[in-house]
Formats: sequence, structure tokens, C-alpha cells
Amino acid sequence: MASDITVFSGSAHREFAQEVCDLLGMELSPSVTTRFSNDCLQVHLDGNCRKRDVFIVQPLVPPVQENLVELLLMLDAARGASAGHLTVVMPHYAYARSDKKDAPRISIGARLVADLLHKAGAQRVVTMALHSPQVHGMFEMPVDHLSAHHVLAEHFRQRDLSNAVVVSPDFGNVKEANQFARLLNLPVAAGAKRRLTDDRVVIDSIVGDVKGKDVIVLDDEIATAGSLVELFDKLREVGVNSISAACVHGLFTGPAVARLNAQPDLKEIVCTNTVPPRIAGELDRLTVLSVAPLFAEAVRRIHSGESISSLFDA
Amino acid sequence: MASDITVFSGSAHREFAQEVCDLLGMELSPSVTTRFSNDCLQVHLDGNCRKRDVFIVQPLVPPVQENLVELLLMLDAARGASAGHLTVVMPHYAYARSDKKDAPRISIGARLVADLLHKAGAQRVVTMALHSPQVHGMFEMPVDHLSAHHVLAEHFRQRDLSNAVVVSPDFGNVKEANQFARLLNLPVAAGAKRRLTDDRVVIDSIVGDVKGKDVIVLDDEIATAGSLVELFDKLREVGVNSISAACVHGLFTGPAVARLNAQPDLKEIVCTNTVPPRIAGELDRLTVLSVAPLFAEAVRRIHSGESISSLFDA
Amino acid sequence: MASDITVFSGSAHREFAQEVCDLLGMELSPSVTTRFSNDCLQVHLDGNCRKRDVFIVQPLVPPVQENLVELLLMLDAARGASAGHLTVVMPHYAYARSDKKDAPRISIGARLVADLLHKAGAQRVVTMALHSPQVHGMFEMPVDHLSAHHVLAEHFRQRDLSNAVVVSPDFGNVKEANQFARLLNLPVAAGAKRRLTDDRVVIDSIVGDVKGKDVIVLDDEIATAGSLVELFDKLREVGVNSISAACVHGLFTGPAVARLNAQPDLKEIVCTNTVPPRIAGELDRLTVLSVAPLFAEAVRRIHSGESISSLFDA
Amino acid sequence: MASDITVFSGSAHREFAQEVCDLLGMELSPSVTTRFSNDCLQVHLDGNCRKRDVFIVQPLVPPVQENLVELLLMLDAARGASAGHLTVVMPHYAYARSDKKDAPRISIGARLVADLLHKAGAQRVVTMALHSPQVHGMFEMPVDHLSAHHVLAEHFRQRDLSNAVVVSPDFGNVKEANQFARLLNLPVAAGAKRRLTDDRVVIDSIVGDVKGKDVIVLDDEIATAGSLVELFDKLREVGVNSISAACVHGLFTGPAVARLNAQPDLKEIVCTNTVPPRIAGELDRLTVLSVAPLFAEAVRRIHSGESISSLFDA
Amino acid sequence: MASDITVFSGSAHREFAQEVCDLLGMELSPSVTTRFSNDCLQVHLDGNCRKRDVFIVQPLVPPVQENLVELLLMLDAARGASAGHLTVVMPHYAYARSDKKDAPRISIGARLVADLLHKAGAQRVVTMALHSPQVHGMFEMPVDHLSAHHVLAEHFRQRDLSNAVVVSPDFGNVKEANQFARLLNLPVAAGAKRRLTDDRVVIDSIVGDVKGKDVIVLDDEIATAGSLVELFDKLREVGVNSISAACVHGLFTGPAVARLNAQPDLKEIVCTNTVPPRIAGELDRLTVLSVAPLFAEAVRRIHSGESISSLFDA
Amino acid sequence: MASDITVFSGSAHREFAQEVCDLLGMELSPSVTTRFSNDCLQVHLDGNCRKRDVFIVQPLVPPVQENLVELLLMLDAARGASAGHLTVVMPHYAYARSDKKDAPRISIGARLVADLLHKAGAQRVVTMALHSPQVHGMFEMPVDHLSAHHVLAEHFRQRDLSNAVVVSPDFGNVKEANQFARLLNLPVAAGAKRRLTDDRVVIDSIVGDVKGKDVIVLDDEIATAGSLVELFDKLREVGVNSISAACVHGLFTGPAVARLNAQPDLKEIVCTNTVPPRIAGELDRLTVLSVAPLFAEAVRRIHSGESISSLFDA
Repeated sequence: MASDITVFSGSAHREFAQEVCDLLGMELSPSVTTRFSNDCLQVHLDGNCRKRDVFIVQPLVPPVQENLVELLLMLDAARGASAGHLTVVMPHYAYARSDKKDAPRISIGARLVADLLHKAGAQRVVTMALHSPQVHGMFEMPVDHLSAHHVLAEHFRQRDLSNAVVVSPDFGNVKEANQFARLLNLPVAAGAKRRLTDDRVVIDSIVGDVKGKDVIVLDDEIATAGSLVELFDKLREVGVNSISAACVHGLFTGPAVARLNAQPDLKEIVCTNTVPPRIAGELDRLTVLSVAPLFAEAVRRIHSGESISSLFDA
Repeated sequence: MASDITVFSGSAHREFAQEVCDLLGMELSPSVTTRFSNDCLQVHLDGNCRKRDVFIVQPLVPPVQENLVELLLMLDAARGASAGHLTVVMPHYAYARSDKKDAPRISIGARLVADLLHKAGAQRVVTMALHSPQVHGMFEMPVDHLSAHHVLAEHFRQRDLSNAVVVSPDFGNVKEANQFARLLNLPVAAGAKRRLTDDRVVIDSIVGDVKGKDVIVLDDEIATAGSLVELFDKLREVGVNSISAACVHGLFTGPAVARLNAQPDLKEIVCTNTVPPRIAGELDRLTVLSVAPLFAEAVRRIHSGESISSLFDA
Repeated sequence: MASDITVFSGSAHREFAQEVCDLLGMELSPSVTTRFSNDCLQVHLDGNCRKRDVFIVQPLVPPVQENLVELLLMLDAARGASAGHLTVVMPHYAYARSDKKDAPRISIGARLVADLLHKAGAQRVVTMALHSPQVHGMFEMPVDHLSAHHVLAEHFRQRDLSNAVVVSPDFGNVKEANQFARLLNLPVAAGAKRRLTDDRVVIDSIVGDVKGKDVIVLDDEIATAGSLVELFDKLREVGVNSISAACVHGLFTGPAVARLNAQPDLKEIVCTNTVPPRIAGELDRLTVLSVAPLFAEAVRRIHSGESISSLFDA
Repeated sequence: MASDITVFSGSAHREFAQEVCDLLGMELSPSVTTRFSNDCLQVHLDGNCRKRDVFIVQPLVPPVQENLVELLLMLDAARGASAGHLTVVMPHYAYARSDKKDAPRISIGARLVADLLHKAGAQRVVTMALHSPQVHGMFEMPVDHLSAHHVLAEHFRQRDLSNAVVVSPDFGNVKEANQFARLLNLPVAAGAKRRLTDDRVVIDSIVGDVKGKDVIVLDDEIATAGSLVELFDKLREVGVNSISAACVHGLFTGPAVARLNAQPDLKEIVCTNTVPPRIAGELDRLTVLSVAPLFAEAVRRIHSGESISSLFDA
Repeated sequence: MASDITVFSGSAHREFAQEVCDLLGMELSPSVTTRFSNDCLQVHLDGNCRKRDVFIVQPLVPPVQENLVELLLMLDAARGASAGHLTVVMPHYAYARSDKKDAPRISIGARLVADLLHKAGAQRVVTMALHSPQVHGMFEMPVDHLSAHHVLAEHFRQRDLSNAVVVSPDFGNVKEANQFARLLNLPVAAGAKRRLTDDRVVIDSIVGDVKGKDVIVLDDEIATAGSLVELFDKLREVGVNSISAACVHGLFTGPAVARLNAQPDLKEIVCTNTVPPRIAGELDRLTVLSVAPLFAEAVRRIHSGESISSLFDA
Repeated sequence: MASDITVFSGSAHREFAQEVCDLLGMELSPSVTTRFSNDCLQVHLDGNCRKRDVFIVQPLVPPVQENLVELLLMLDAARGASAGHLTVVMPHYAYARSDKKDAPRISIGARLVADLLHKAGAQRVVTMALHSPQVHGMFEMPVDHLSAHHVLAEHFRQRDLSNAVVVSPDFGNVKEANQFARLLNLPVAAGAKRRLTDDRVVIDSIVGDVKGKDVIVLDDEIATAGSLVELFDKLREVGVNSISAACVHGLFTGPAVARLNAQPDLKEIVCTNTVPPRIAGELDRLTVLSVAPLFAEAVRRIHSGESISSLFDA
């Protein structure tokens, strides 16, 4: 790797940053985050930034607000230290879910946080599986939006897919599910979901044919798994042959592990490592696939000025 | 209406602007658009703007580029004339369809045009039925995003809906279709569409139950009606009882009129007047519903500082 | 109070916001902060903002990052809801302590956070006792910087000051201490402090005459009280008659309560209510003075367009 | 030519872009402009932009609005694709004629369009023969403003100039005419023109000595040729020996060809290829001189970091 | 005059500001400019700005740099003091002469200073007789560009104009001269000037008929009068009947008074009071006309929201 | 030195710029500043800027306003000439003293001028000994803030320091004095100063132990020396052994030379060459130390992308 590149990691997911650096054959530059007695953060970047191509790795995972402010401080520090170009490597952009104004007088958080990152000095973002592809257009700066579909598809190709169907838990994700299904030459179906509160939903019905099928439920993110479990109930009600679940961002917050472990007929759960797997070992039947090679390749091409468009659908 | 408000109209849809002004009981201020011999435009606003609440009415309808540049010139003229506050009333925002980067090295037009409007002086936009709700977040300024669902639902309530189902032509619009269906207490289905080129699509299948039903196809916009007609074929193949079509933005460009008139079993087509109905009289079985009352009420509340959030879901 | 003003409060210090509203004889408008299952926040403002003079009350107190992001979301929501003018009422601006670059490659947090507030929509800030007065110049927008000196001085005027001296714990605060001392016609002294880590300092010596005196230690903020306690030791070593402590922002974090309760000869501790007094009842000999009347008067004058410069030195 | 440069062309004048690339010994990178069925444009750039020096060639010629919006989309696409530096090569900037506010409540189009180009991502403009040199100052970014005088003068040096005079059709262009005249050591005169409408003017008189002379009329742009033909009449009235006409931007729109072909005593018309010569073959006695070598040399020097100031008066 | 308007004056021309306030029947608010021992300036505005319509009167006259920086400090102070709207009343904008890039690597000062004024907080400029009308387009904010032609024409209508001609000293000003001449129904002529250095020019010839005429030379600004005196020589050489001179901005710097007093046959010199008449009494045959009524009327209409376009050509 | 770097100097301190260039072994590029007859400035940069690393050397010394505007014009010229990166080398930033709002309705000049520099094109500032370190945070761009302490300390290490004490003339500078004292292992004291007007202060008392000591008074800037001389009186009153004075920025304006020459017992005065030593030879006992090597090293490292953080405390 060229000598004029520097990679820092925030506190959110150092293992990911380290894996990316290892793949690139370079050092992860150290940084120290201090919490003052009045609870303010300070980040000291311990590596020369001057005129260099600087990458800061930080997914927006819980504690989201802490990780966001830490990232903003790192960006500002790198800019103030005369970084040549400043890229945020953000495998999971949690605020992408706040992508529309579905109530009066709320913020569209996806746009606000994009603006804050830009204001703090970010000049580019590399991310994966935004909640909706339109969030790309909320950034004032170039975004390299990677897809995890190929990594996930590669995994499922090792399974028997002769009787499988891909199911989106709701209509919002159905285009993504459709794209993924096409990689595997499978049909698609969707849950007609009505969201009551943030983790309480009612599945009205399944739109599409799932009866007797081997279902692969695909979502972009699994958090409390509340709606997922309700979908499983609906699928059983309809009468499917088997259920697997796949997602890109495996947060598994709150009651998620308990809920999922309580599904005896769940064949497997697959996610990627965009989120630090804090529940490793606790969640049964979980497979975590690494997308670090995709991100490492993106960083390499960004730095060397090669086109990375081929990574967008790969 | 208060005396410190001024409404101008671009060339795109003067009838709509006039109807809004009539409903508000005020004059539409004149403006003159000149085309120079080198094809550049100039717009002269013939009404005092100084410190006033200025509204410029212009949907982005064909010729889109002409109408867009005319609007930008009007905004800049009003700003230069010291307008107090400057609102774009844009019943149809055509570039909202360019809302994501589905190919490398293309512009997300919805974001770009939002930025251009802001740069030219716009401080607020009032619009209706954006292609996706996320486009809201691409604007740097406040957006009042009105819905036509209630106006359309009011119309269909006069029909027999006992056997009806709402069908979205593709997955992208299925959330909107679902929302509309709920207003009428109807189920929803969707076409699994694969877009080949801009007006050539293949409908793979219908996801959801439509057999023997009275289908109401709902889309945000009908342009050439290419995919719509293909959907009709698929619906007939499946065997539905009847077909109606509804949309907010009735562009009916190119072969649309011929295509739709050639559907003998199409019960009716319903659209609103966000787009000037240039094909009036030519398109059989068309009903155009006016949304000018909604826009007039929005303008009134914006000017008087009342909340308009109740209009968003009405 | 005029009807076209709206005050919201973030989660940080609702009592303060309520007290300000009570003093103004108006309602505090409700708002609801939701935490999504992926840890992202959403704030819904439940009160019309359109064209109104909107004030959002939020001191940056622990948890600072949560409160900061909540505030940014509220600002963006109010702006998107077409607020006429948007003022942040921030009694304590914690990031003001990060006001210089005393190490390479760190952010000047005071500037960064000021920029973030502006980017999110803030058009004015009303604050009190910034760590250094220069932080005012880091804001791109107007700042009304109130002083607590008169409120504190009023309190101490009820004590016997015939033998008193004001002591600044370090050189950074000595100008403020001097100003406060002048209000009471008292001399000033200062600890020559060497900061080792964030809450570990060494007091080298006391510059100025304190022997046999009744010492009033004045600082802008008390957090863990680490340096304060060390100063007390040094003062006892020199031989003072009595010790009192006063500050504007009484955070009392971590070991502060235990440390201060363990000072048997500490006469009293005085602070204001810029920070929610979470330790009420636990900390012996504490008096909390309200500065809400000052803030209420500032809000009133800002709204009515009166000069508030007389409040700056009051 | 270095390998890290990419040149695209919009639809306005591909021949010119190709000629520039040929002179530079490099490929013109392909791009595809699509018109959607709702009349919106999309441009796909088919060549890597990442970190490269990107040039987009597009004169603002009719259809001006289409070409302008296409250019804005191309700029935004190149920026989003992480172009290193983004230069617009705009041989003719039509909106430069809208350079002042000669009526109330109009836009100064030259400034507005300059701002739009910058907002869309342009970082530099290379152009020629702006309608007035002050338009340079309306751009926020560096402008390289090339002159066609030397190319035109070179042509006329092959004529007999012993009895010649340069005539400006109006006072606005007289400084330019004077500069051109000095290159040929000729005197200068000017028409005292009163503009009635955009293509209707009255020539009051000729200021300066033209009687019995060989007149070379010089203007920056010929559009409908309305005022030009009226000037010819006035010149004949005064009694000149012969008439030639020269301009940089030969638009020849509307009745221009008919009008000019109807001037039997017009010796020749000379223009450059900043505008695509759509009337080639139709307009008698026309000579088109190429300024592509000037633009190619400018692109070469911009890319290699050489000074190009010598091209400004050449 | 409404009570919510505040007018301040910089040091450049307090008499003018006072005259404007007298005409408006209001007080000029005091301000104090201090020069620190390190030569930095500080301006204290002594009048409430909060939410008010603030006007700052300051022509850019010598010492230009002092007056410019003083103005920038006043703007920033008024903005920081929460001015509602901030207008610069700048009767003479000296940097308007730096309106083009006539040498490589120079600043277009007219644009730069316009940007600085905007950055410092100006939201509108009221000015008169810009060196070229295109300078208007270099401002990012609204400009009200007043004309002195009617005031000057009113004066000359009292003279015998039966044999008069208006002469522009060079081609740059000839459009203005033409406009002025038309108000008086007079013909126009122009000096063909070649500028050698800033105050050394050579008049090649007079373009147009001046022999035996009563010449009124019109320029926007008279500084050292170097080129004017040379024009007088040329006019005498051609043989005119009499010479008068008129300008808007009478700077009369350096050798101007001596030069002009040494012209025995100069009938009169007329200027306006946009520039403080520091040479009053020294310059023979000088008449100073007041344009304060025009500016007062502009301020009145700006404040009350009336159209002022009628003042632009009056 | 690399060939792609260009250094210009404004009029303020060419000797310093020349010394920096000599140390770097490169040419100082010429520039010509012209004053027009209307007192406006124009700067012509005579050296290619295109894509180069451009440095402009200009301390803000008297005449401050002239030097500031000249610098702004140079920055804009370099930006317009397509400079690759644009750094201001400003050894003395006079407006840093206007760093807080200590009266209502004044500008915080340090912030305003920082914004103006940025607006004019500056992308980085290299400066020394800002009046307060917080001024760093008022710049939107990276600042390299050099310290003169090591250069000054090196000088005093050659003196007998066995009985010495460092005295700050006021509390504002006491942290700096403390830092300097620590380099020399000396104690610190401070004058308790009350500023009456800009150059009239009253020293109330000396806080800290100075009796019988060899005092080194340290300040950041000496202008009229008014407060310094008053401090000397107070020190003599207390009874010190000897007095020396040191500062970074030796302005010595107005009565400074007379005042300082009239102190018979003043051992020596030491300053650096951040300010042109216009009083050379007149001021007795003055030693001027060069900090050009520090600036040259900073320029070298900035250009080559090396870390310069080690220069901040050196």
C-alpha cells in the first residue's frame, strides 16, 4: 500500500478497521479518545495527516450518539491537521432509517447527520446497504455505496435452493429482496406489515407465494427482531417448509438474542460484520460473513484512483 | 388574503396558478418571459416583491428543461427584487424520479435540481406526491409535501369497492399503494416488474391476490403508459374482473393516449391537475380531479403561519 | 408574552425550561424523544413552529453526546417546520472547555460544536459563563453571553467579607475571578496549577496573598472537584482562615460529592442551576441559585427586540 | 497527453470536443444522454473520473436550456464520481449577454448561470469572448477567458487593409473593436444604436469616420443579424467603399441566413467555430475559423500547470 | 419614519448620512471608532440593532482601505447585535473600477470587495453610478443601483443647450454618456483613449462631431483629472466652442485641483455629493449637487417595502 | 526546495519574506502593488501560480488596514490564477487582540478578519504567538500556530537566571508567562492591571513574589509601552533588583521609543522580527531575534507533507 495513506479507527468497531488494514498490508494508525470529567470527548490522532489520504473507520452502531460525536471530532481533528483528503468508512449508517418525514416536525436524521459529517470535514463516505438507496442523494459529497448481496448470495449458494423463496419482511425492502433473489434465481414475496410502534408491528398477510417453501427472509438490519419473529409466526401460519434469515447489519439489540434463540425451527441466521458482533456465542445458529475484503478493495481503489463501480453490485 | 403576498406563475401551468389565486381571492401577478435571439430566456416579474411573501407556481412538466431554467430565472429575479420570503409551488417535481444512483457516474437529478432551486433563491417548496418520500430529504430547505390520496380516495368511494384490490405496478410504489388502499379498506398487490429500458418493462408476475377482482392500479405518474399497458396484459392473463387506473401526475406523453385508448376493457383513468391536461378530450374515460384547493389552503396557511401538517395526509 | 413564541425543551434540564416559561407566563411546548431499536434518536416537536420565534432549551450536560445529538435533531426539526427564528438557550456549553489546540491533531471542540449547531439550524445562542470569553468568537451566529457574577455576588454580599479574598484555582480563570472580586471590592489570588491529566493536577503555589484570609474560591465549573480539593490542601498549608467555593456550573460528577463532603472545614459551596442538580441532598452545605430569571428576561427581550446588553455584566 | 485526464462532451458541439481531443492526441471519453418519458434528462459518463482532471466541453448554444441542464447533470455526475478537478470548456457562454439589470425585477442571467455551474460542481471555466469582460467577475471560480482576436486578425491580414476601418455595431462592443483594430493598425468607428426590442434596433448615426472606407464590422455574436443589416443600410447611406463582417460566435438564428444572403455587396462574413456551424453551405461568403487549437493548448497548459496568460491576448 | 429603523455612519462621509437622516426626519445613531495602539480599528455602535432595519452609510472614498475595514467591522458588529436586516448605503463604490481582469494574476477587486461585504453581514447594498453596470452582478445580495443622471440633467437644463454635445472621455463610459445625452436630447461623441498608466493616457482622437460645439464632458468619476485635461487639449485642438465637465463622483485627488484651476476656458465643473467635498472652496467653478434626497427616498421605500425601481432611471 | 512552490510577499515585511526564501534556497517571486488615483489598490502577482503551492507572507502590522486589504487582493489574485494550495504566512496577527466582546455591539475582529481571509481564498494560515490561543478556533481553515518561547528562552539562558522571576504584565498573559518560565525553571508573577483606555492602565498590585528579584517581563506584544512603563514603576515601588523586558511582537508605536529609552535601569529589551524593526537604532538596549528559521522550516514541512507539530512548542 502506498505510503501516503493513513487509516484511523474510532471506538465503534476497531476489529473491522484492523481487518481492513491487514488486508491492505498496512498499519492502523493509533488514536486516543479521552472522556473529560464534564463528559466531553476529545480524540487525539496519533499519526501524520498532512497532505495524506486519510480514512476514518466508524460504523454508526450503539452507542450511536457517542460514536457519532467521536467521529465528528476525529474528522475535525484530521482536517485541522491538514489531511489531503478525508474519507469516512462507515459500514453501517444507522441514521439512514430516518429517511423521510413520516410525522410532522421531525428531523430527517439521515440528511442531518450527512450534513454534520460534511461540516466536520468529511469529503467522501464509503458505506454499505443503506436503508433506502435514496439516502445516497442526501449526502453533499461523493458516496461509494457497496452492496453485500454477492457475499450473502455466495453463502446461500451452498444451500439447497430448489424449493426456496426470498421474503422481504415489508414493502420498504422488497426491491432489495428482489435484487438479491435474482442473484439466486429465486422468486420473491413480502410481508404486508403495519408498524404500530418502533418495535411492535402487525403482519397483516404475506403477499406472494410461500406455502411449502424454504423461506429466506432478507432484511437490511436486524435490531430487536420484533417484526422478524412476528413474520415467522405468519409464515408458520401459512405453512412454510423451513425458515432462514439473512441481513447485512446484525445489531441484535435488546431482546433480539432471546427472541431468536426461542425459534426452534429457525434453520440459520446470516449477517455480515458491518456491526461488531457483540453477541458472538450467545446467538445460536449465527453465521457472520466478513465484508472487510470489499471495503479494503474499495479503499485501495479510491486511493489509487481506480473505478470502483464494479464493487457496487458485487 | 393579506395584501403582502404576491403570486407569480411560470409558463408551465398558468391555469393551475390562476385557480389557486381564484380560490385565495387574489390576483395572479403578471410576468413576461422573453426568448432572446440566442435562445436565452429572460423573465420580467411585473409586481412588487420587496419584503413580500412571494410564491412562484411552476410544475416541472415538459418541456422540463425550459420550465426549470425559467423557474430558476424567476427565483433569482424575485430574490434580487428583495422578496421577503420565496416559495416554489411545484405540484409535480419530475426530477424526483432520478432519486438514486442505479448506474455508475450518473447524477442523482432529484438532489441536483433541489440544490439548483435553493441556489437560485428558493427558501421553501410546496409539492405533491414525490416519486419517493426520501426525496424530501434531498432539499436543504423546508418542503411541504402534500398528498393526493384523499382526493383520489374520495373519487373511488363513489364506486363499488366490494370486490376491489389496489395494485401497484412495481415494488417501488407499493408503500404508497398500501397507504391508499388503507384509506379505502382494500387489500394490495404488486407487479414484479423488471425495467429493460425507460419505457420497456417486463412484468414477471403479480405478487398478491388479484384473480377475479376489480383492480385499481395506482401509480404516482403515468408518462408513456408503457409499463401500465403491460401490467394490464398480465392482469388479464391472471384473470381479473375489471381494471381502473389512477395516478397523481397524468403526463400522458408520446404514445400514451393511443395506448390507453386501445384498452377496450379499461373502466376509467383518474388523475389530478398537477400537470396541465394537454390531452384533454383525446384520452377516453379520463377524469381529472383538482388539487388546487389543497395547494391554495397550503399557501394560505404558510402565509398566515398556521400549521399545515394536517394537509400532509389529507 | 406574545403569542408567536414557542419554547421547547430537550431532555437535559426540563425543570430549567419550565422555570423560564413560568417566569414568562407561557406554556412550555411538549416534545417527544424516541430511541429506536438501533439506538438512533428521533424528536417530535408537538407545537406549531411556522413563522414563530422558537427557543430550544438544552444545556450540554451529561450525557453530553446524547444531549447534543438530541438538540441537533430538534433544531433541524424546527427549521424543517419553518420556524421563523431559531434560538438555542444553552445555560451550560460544556464543549467550551475544548477551546484551544494544546496538543497536535485534536479538534477544537468548542468551534466544531458551534459549527454543528449552526449547520443544524440554530440562528442564535443564549448561554452563560463560557469557559473563556473568546469562545464567543467561534460561533458564526449571534451569541448572547450572560454572566452569573451578579447573582453569585448578591449571595456573598450577605456574608462577612471584611477579611475575604477571591481565589482562582488557576491562571485561566483569573480574569473572571478578578471581575467577580471587583463586584465585592475584594482582592484576588490564584493557584499556580500544573495539570497532569484531566482530573489530576498539582498546585505548585498560591500567587497572591491569602494567609489568614477568608477564601472564596471561584471557578466557572466544578466537575470531579479534583483540582479544587488539591487547592484546599494548598490553602490550608499556607494557612487561611476559612474556605468557601463558588461556581456557575455545578456538575459534581464522579467522586465530587464524596470528595467535597470529606472537607470538614469547607464553609459552603454555591452554584447556579445551569446544570440539573442531580446530586441534590447528597452534597452537604450546597446552595443552588437560580439564573432562570436572567434567561427569562433575555428571552423576553430577544423576542421583543429590546437591547439585552445590560444583562451581560449583570 | 498525460493519462490522468478525461474529456467528455455534451450534446451541444461534439465536433469541437473531438477536434480538441485530436489536437491533444487523446480519446474523447464517451457519454450517453437519455431522455426519460417525463422529459427529464440523465447523462451517464462512460469513463473513469476518480482523482482525474476532468474536462467537459459544452458551449451554451441553442437549445440553450437543454444544453445547460445537460451540462449541470454531467458536472454533478463527474463530481459524484470523485473527479479530481472539474473544468467546463465553454467556447460560447450565451447567458453572458444577460449581464446587467436594465429593467426592474429581472435576473442577471450571467451571474445566475455562473452560480448554477459552480453549485453543480464546476471548479473552473475556460471560455472565449464573453459579451462583456466584467462577466468574468460574476464567476466564483477561476475563469480562463480566451480571445479570438488574433485568429480573426490573422485572417484579415491577408486582405488589403490600406483603406479599412473597424466598426462596432454599438457602443457596448466598441472597446473590443478598438482592441481588434489596434492589432491591425486600423481606426475605429461605432454605430449609435438604440435597441427597441431584442431583434429590432434603430441606428441613429455612425460615430467616427467611415465615408469611402472598407468597413470591417466586428461584433462578439451574430444571432438574427437584425441590427447588423440595419447597420449595413446606415453604412451605405453614409457611403462606404465595401463591407465585411466578423464575429466570434456565429449563431445565425432565425432569419439570419436569409437576411445576410440578401446583402449583395457584403464581401465576406467571418466567424469561429465556438458554435456548431449548423448553417454550413447555406450562408454565402462565410468563412469559419477554428479556435480549437487555442482551447486545446489551454487544456494542455491547465493540466500541466503552465501559465496560460499568454493565450488571453492571443 | 418608523421607529424600528436605525442608521449609522462610518467615518467616510458623516455629512451625507446626516443629510439623509434629516430628510427622513430621524436621528443618526452614534457610533465610536477607536484605533488601538497596534493600529487595529474597533467600532462601537451606540444604538439598539436587535430585530431592527439597520442601514450603515459609508462611501468607499479615500482613505479607501481604512473606510472599507471600518465598514466591515460595523457590519459584523450590527450582525452580532442581532440586526433584523442590514443594508449598506454606499454612494460611491470605488472598487467598482477593478471590474475585469485586464492583466494576468490580479484580483477583480469589485467582486472581491462585494464578497467581503456579504461575508461581514451585509444583506443589501444601495449605491450609485457603478463604474460599469455589470458590477451589479458581482454582488451575491440585492443591489439597488441609483442613477444620478436626472439630477445632473436637471442642472444642465438651466443652461443653453442649443449647440451642445455630450462627450465621453473614453469608450468605456460611452453608453452612460449616451443615456445622459438622450435625457437632454443631445448628440454624443467619445475620446478614443489609450491608457498608458493609471493617470497617464493618450487621447488618439475624438470619435464623433464636436467642432464648434459646446461640449459637456461626462464621466462617472474624476480623480486626478489627468485624462480629463488631456481630453480638453484634444477638444481645443479640434476646435470646440466651450467646455464644461460633469461627473457623479468628484474625488479630485492629488493634482486635480491645480490641474483644473489651470484650465482658464473651462466653463464649469459639476459633481454630486457622493464623495465628501474635501476641496470645497479650492476648486474654482465647482457646483456640487446633492443626491441625498434620492438615497433618503430609497431608504424610506426599502424600509416600507415599496418598489424603488422608479428611482433607478431617475 | 521543490520547483512547484511559489512565495510572494506583500508590502508589510519584505525582509522577512526574503529571509525565509533565502533559508529555503529559493527565489521570492515578485509582485507589484499599485495604488489607483481613487486610492484603490491592485496587486499583480508576477509568477506562475497554476497548480502550485503558493505562500503569501504578510504580517498584519501598521498600516494594518492597508496591509490587510493588500493581502486579501493577493489571495484573490492567486486563487483566480488557479493556485493549487494557498497559505498565508502571517508572523503577527494584530487583530487577534480583538478576541472577545467586552462591550455590546462591537465586532470580534479576530473572527471577522479570519473569515475575510478565508473568503478571499486562504486555505491555511501559519502564524505565531496569537494574543490568546483560543483565536486559533476562530479560523475555519487549518492554522499552524508557532511559538517563539524557545527562541526567547535560548536568549535568556545566556543570562544569570539564579535570582530571576518571569512577570506577566496582566492576567491575560499569565499562562503564556508560566509556560515560558517553565522552560527556564523560573517562578512566575503577574501585575493586577486595570485597563482604563487602550493605552492607559493602572497597575493595582503585583500578585506573586518579585521583591529583590531579577525580573523578566514577558508580553506577547509591545505597542506604545504604556502599561509596561507603569508596570516598571510598580516593580520599582515593590523593590526589584533588575528589570528586563521580552516580547514576541515588537511594534514600538507612538511614544514607545521615548518611553523605553527613558527607563535608565531597564537592562534589555528582547523581541523577534515578526514585525519589521522600523525603529532599529533608535531604541536603546534592543535585541531582535529572528524567527524566520522557524517559519522557513514550517513552510518546508507544509510543502513536503511532514508533521510540524514539533514546531508548535519549539
